Amino acid sequence: MEEKKFTHLTQSGVHMVEVGDKPVIKRTALARGKINLQEETINLIEKGELKKGNVLTTAQIAAIQAVKSTSQLIPLCHPIPIGGVEVEFEVTPGSIEVTVEVKSTGKTGVEMEAITGVSVGLLTIWDMVKSVEKDEKGQYPSTSISAIEVLKKEKIELNFD
Amino acid sequence: MEEKKFTHLTQSGVHMVEVGDKPVIKRTALARGKINLQEETINLIEKGELKKGNVLTTAQIAAIQAVKSTSQLIPLCHPIPIGGVEVEFEVTPGSIEVTVEVKSTGKTGVEMEAITGVSVGLLTIWDMVKSVEKDEKGQYPSTSISAIEVLKKEKIELNFD
Amino acid sequence: MEEKKFTHLTQSGVHMVEVGDKPVIKRTALARGKINLQEETINLIEKGELKKGNVLTTAQIAAIQAVKSTSQLIPLCHPIPIGGVEVEFEVTPGSIEVTVEVKSTGKTGVEMEAITGVSVGLLTIWDMVKSVEKDEKGQYPSTSISAIEVLKKEKIELNFD
Amino acid sequence: MEEKKFTHLTQSGVHMVEVGDKPVIKRTALARGKINLQEETINLIEKGELKKGNVLTTAQIAAIQAVKSTSQLIPLCHPIPIGGVEVEFEVTPGSIEVTVEVKSTGKTGVEMEAITGVSVGLLTIWDMVKSVEKDEKGQYPSTSISAIEVLKKEKIELNFD
Amino acid sequence: MEEKKFTHLTQSGVHMVEVGDKPVIKRTALARGKINLQEETINLIEKGELKKGNVLTTAQIAAIQAVKSTSQLIPLCHPIPIGGVEVEFEVTPGSIEVTVEVKSTGKTGVEMEAITGVSVGLLTIWDMVKSVEKDEKGQYPSTSISAIEVLKKEKIELNFD
Amino acid sequence: MEEKKFTHLTQSGVHMVEVGDKPVIKRTALARGKINLQEETINLIEKGELKKGNVLTTAQIAAIQAVKSTSQLIPLCHPIPIGGVEVEFEVTPGSIEVTVEVKSTGKTGVEMEAITGVSVGLLTIWDMVKSVEKDEKGQYPSTSISAIEVLKKEKIELNFD
Repeated sequence: MEEKKFTHLTQSGVHMVEVGDKPVIKRTALARGKINLQEETINLIEKGELKKGNVLTTAQIAAIQAVKSTSQLIPLCHPIPIGGVEVEFEVTPGSIEVTVEVKSTGKTGVEMEAITGVSVGLLTIWDMVKSVEKDEKGQYPSTSISAIEVLKKEKIELNFD
Repeated sequence: MEEKKFTHLTQSGVHMVEVGDKPVIKRTALARGKINLQEETINLIEKGELKKGNVLTTAQIAAIQAVKSTSQLIPLCHPIPIGGVEVEFEVTPGSIEVTVEVKSTGKTGVEMEAITGVSVGLLTIWDMVKSVEKDEKGQYPSTSISAIEVLKKEKIELNFD
Repeated sequence: MEEKKFTHLTQSGVHMVEVGDKPVIKRTALARGKINLQEETINLIEKGELKKGNVLTTAQIAAIQAVKSTSQLIPLCHPIPIGGVEVEFEVTPGSIEVTVEVKSTGKTGVEMEAITGVSVGLLTIWDMVKSVEKDEKGQYPSTSISAIEVLKKEKIELNFD
Repeated sequence: MEEKKFTHLTQSGVHMVEVGDKPVIKRTALARGKINLQEETINLIEKGELKKGNVLTTAQIAAIQAVKSTSQLIPLCHPIPIGGVEVEFEVTPGSIEVTVEVKSTGKTGVEMEAITGVSVGLLTIWDMVKSVEKDEKGQYPSTSISAIEVLKKEKIELNFD
Repeated sequence: MEEKKFTHLTQSGVHMVEVGDKPVIKRTALARGKINLQEETINLIEKGELKKGNVLTTAQIAAIQAVKSTSQLIPLCHPIPIGGVEVEFEVTPGSIEVTVEVKSTGKTGVEMEAITGVSVGLLTIWDMVKSVEKDEKGQYPSTSISAIEVLKKEKIELNFD
Repeated sequence: MEEKKFTHLTQSGVHMVEVGDKPVIKRTALARGKINLQEETINLIEKGELKKGNVLTTAQIAAIQAVKSTSQLIPLCHPIPIGGVEVEFEVTPGSIEVTVEVKSTGKTGVEMEAITGVSVGLLTIWDMVKSVEKDEKGQYPSTSISAIEVLKKEKIELNFD
């Protein structure tokens, strides 16, 4: 932007940084997170006996849609083309772990997309089991989301020779 | 994703399949569908005498915006760049046919975008004529949407020589 | 709006009509539509053997989310509170029928919400089975959506006595 | 819905349960979560020296907008009117805690809105500090989100006497 | 929120203020704005000879949809029910004036909705006439948007006696 | 589209014109607009004493998110990849000027994105200062948005030699 003096007020402002000169390469990111639930709730999920229905498929779909919406949710994220998304679950007696892998061919990494998918997948599981996780006062003493991490980020240089 | 054992619960799950290695080529899709209306309603549309206003232009705009939103509406659709959209109508005494042609240069076909545009265009026509299609009990005995089809899909290989 | 002369150009325009004085009452709408598929595709859906995964649960979720997005898809629709949505399927050898029931307590009917849910549910089924419905030339000779109708609309007057 | 036989396939489906008969009352929910960051990153946030700009205000705004979008992100959530949102931070040498309080007058609780706000606020902090949290291989060995909980849910019965 | 000490960093933060105790009353707002265009462009609009098509109906629809999306565009705006929207135009040789009236029955005024509708209506007109307003260097020396104002806001106390 | 006769009704319709054959090049656009406010309001913004909080950072974020949403707001706009966005302010005693620069590598210019960012930035400032700009009758006699212009558009031909 041309030579210009701006007020000091903008010094605390925000910037969507330019990525136009970054190369278009294949990128993947793998992220994971966990929701802690009562053992009884896990049983109901496995038996498919929750009033709202199929917990894990709903969480998968919510996670995939969130991956595609990341640049609308996170203000300074760049919109990028999403090539593929895999959402998987590991169910243990006291928790469900959600793993999301995102693949893209673009100018920025996809770790934000992967952890956004994990987060919304976990929130969706919580929503599906609210009626059984709530105690008699409507509180959630044993429900929590934890350990959201980026496990691995990779760039794959494309070779056009 | 690395060697891992996942619960059987995910076997009924969903996948947004990887398209990263598909070539970027020009693609078009042409789709069509029909809404059946009373002859009197068609007359009012042609004379421009409906309370909500210009039925067909509103349907065109809704169809174009739906084409651009397809990957938000259909959970496992990939977002793709839309190059152009044409929406046309064929009005007969008992129905309006909507045709949508979508052009794109990307990694996946655009037939879902074309039939989504057709569907939302038809839904919008219905919305615009509700007041005249409803009978005295508020029911729609003579209104229906039918024959939504993909007429043609094409790939045009780009030649850079 | 005050006494004013507007250009004739607006005569072909559109209006989001005022509903502010309509009573807030309980309303339901029931809509239905059908997608025609190859018998082999229906078998794969029933056996759960499609690459993209669980067809009917994905369609249910897409339909429910579309019901909630109706006023964004249909330009002159009023946003209304959605109280509940049920999406059901009837599977026959050559087709799947989707039924959507919407309940609301508001100022406008919910038939547009119900047929929007049906339409997006059907589009989602199509997307899930693309790979098996396409012929060797990438065309869809035997796939179509038909018979989208509003089966029933009801108002339930609330009695506060 | 009328007497009808549906396929067994829908037994694993999902339902947006009816809340039409629940009373409209004032409701609040308070949720909290934490992002673990390097001490150096926390210093840069406090000094306002990050390239993308003002981390906490961006996270506040993202959290508020996410609260308003909850029913679009979580498939079976009901849309509800949001009366007010407060987002606050507690910064310690190794982490930032985000607290979100949501107030509403409606038919369903707002705990999903509160934890969605917390989650998106935390994701936004991560996005703002990516450049300093990444190690030289582009990985995030010391960044994680944890302890997302609903601290308190309340209903306030309205008294019209 | 309970007694708590928060970091000074939040003092520069933002708040979506509580409106839960405001009364639900009928509200209207009327806003207006203007786009300055070349006389030749105005002629083409009136004759309906622009490549992109019907300028004013497209602007009306975009304005109505923007009114409904205001709380997604303006971060601290409360979502409110929209009862009705009227968009009108006054075309003069050098400009088009857009007037938007919004009616609602809710807890907050609708002036933001009205000026958002005006702004997006004007932006849409600009988009529709880009090809004829641009000079030979691709610049817009004679196009501008001006005079966006709230003309009138009203509350109508509801009388239940 | 094949040889076909369409009704005259579509002659007043709209078209999302094909851009598929335009070259992918670097593009920038710089736009500007102004909101006129009372001197006292400007003082409160500079001192950070407004109830809703940090006015300019909120406006920056809203502007950036609007740039990314342009193709959803403006019906016939093509979605394009956004490479970077800068939002700056010039504060004078009676007004705030917002400047938005958008960079992209794509097939269409980004002037619509830049003026959409300016417009939504200005609308957001208005929303943040409503309580102090309103007079005792709830009207806005001294608030207005003006002078929204595209200052400069540039194409940068990419050279792959």
